[in-house]
Amino acid sequence: MAETEQSIPTAAVLLIGDEILSGRTKDKNLGYIADFLTARGIDLKEARVVSDDEAEIVAALNALRHRYTYVFTTGGIGPTHDDITADAVARAFDVPIGPDARAVEMLEAYYREVGREATPARMRMARMPQGAEHIDNPVSRAPGFVIGNVFVMAGVPKIMQAMLENAAPRLEGGVQMQSRSIRVHVPEGDLGGPLADIQAAFPDVGIGSYPFETGTGFGANVVLRSRDAGRLDEAERAVREMLDGLAPAVPGQPWQA
Amino acid sequence: MAETEQSIPTAAVLLIGDEILSGRTKDKNLGYIADFLTARGIDLKEARVVSDDEAEIVAALNALRHRYTYVFTTGGIGPTHDDITADAVARAFDVPIGPDARAVEMLEAYYREVGREATPARMRMARMPQGAEHIDNPVSRAPGFVIGNVFVMAGVPKIMQAMLENAAPRLEGGVQMQSRSIRVHVPEGDLGGPLADIQAAFPDVGIGSYPFETGTGFGANVVLRSRDAGRLDEAERAVREMLDGLAPAVPGQPWQA
Repeated sequence: MAETEQSIPTAAVLLIGDEILSGRTKDKNLGYIADFLTARGIDLKEARVVSDDEAEIVAALNALRHRYTYVFTTGGIGPTHDDITADAVARAFDVPIGPDARAVEMLEAYYREVGREATPARMRMARMPQGAEHIDNPVSRAPGFVIGNVFVMAGVPKIMQAMLENAAPRLEGGVQMQSRSIRVHVPEGDLGGPLADIQAAFPDVGIGSYPFETGTGFGANVVLRSRDAGRLDEAERAVREMLDGLAPAVPGQPWQA
Repeated sequence: MAETEQSIPTAAVLLIGDEILSGRTKDKNLGYIADFLTARGIDLKEARVVSDDEAEIVAALNALRHRYTYVFTTGGIGPTHDDITADAVARAFDVPIGPDARAVEMLEAYYREVGREATPARMRMARMPQGAEHIDNPVSRAPGFVIGNVFVMAGVPKIMQAMLENAAPRLEGGVQMQSRSIRVHVPEGDLGGPLADIQAAFPDVGIGSYPFETGTGFGANVVLRSRDAGRLDEAERAVREMLDGLAPAVPGQPWQA
């Protein structure tokens, strides 16, 4: 297991924006990025939300980028005064920031094309830390960027999703995590003991239990996760056998696939 | 401003659970807690999401609890083996953990009443760090708890929301933040420059710009935030005057209240 683990890329997400912490905007990016990374075998290990404050962004970014294979930020790269992510990233990497020639050209051409003025505010979006490379934005053109292991993306979900897609070729995926989900119509309190025994017998399979309540009673989704399909089969068999033994008197089986 | 700021309570949220980082569960608690705190004049400054890993929970909790007035955790206090939050909190506070007499009594009575067995898994939910006090759970009875400035709550939104309500009397609220929102039918790129000038003139009013796109064009919600209604009035007036000057040729006004 240890050998496999070493080759598994890890990631952190840094959501930037007062509007998330005030409750005004409900974040939709974390769940999307989580799904995206999981599908590629990259383990998302941590996420943070910080305000539009340069020192806070710098501190969080430096804590995360030294620890994980990749860091994905969302928010704060638009044209207004509260968009300070690019400056904070430059400061975190201790590099200068200025207009990126290709981004300037691209934005000027775009605004000419759509008949909008290339205001200083808009042209702020062409500023990038030295050494950054573009992440294309097919929606509103102003690019995100990648520097080192940090991917800097917009906060607007539609733009963020397009940028993530464009960042994908740069990511080294891992052996994909596989999972099995078993919907159990037994309350977690009855399940907890025997499930802990199975977890102890399968330390290399992650076993989670996520309770639900329907109108007619309690249950849980038991989720098994591993990169080894064989071990996953064995663990799943153990859970199903345990469930069969748990509630033999109930008509039908206490679980569904 | 500095004088007022000193009396404003701050908070952090710590979401605990592999299921959020894997994307399997989309968090709904952060936005809810953010709204709850904002309504009470408590500034939510930071949020983190960590996995069901004791060392990670301990490290995040210790980083946050020394820095903010309050910390709210969600998740990991159920009956299964992956519910390790109570143990992690005890370790973070360096206090012993064990069955809480009142919680034991309450849970035993409850399970008797509903005809469920008080399994060892269920009775794990009566374990609390020494010195913790209950946060009542009207939904499924197993209590959350508060220790020091840390509020430990369930991850299931319905239960978390009830616990938060029950925690409210323990929270010292601040002077409530007031906000004004102006929906502007002008692209952010045209707005950015003049809005930055207004922000510079009103350093004590937080001004944010949150872009949107409709089928017919771009716009932004400009949000002004301050605890001083008078200054908020002045800043709002300045923004509306700026907007009037920005697009005088457009039929109608470029903004809506």
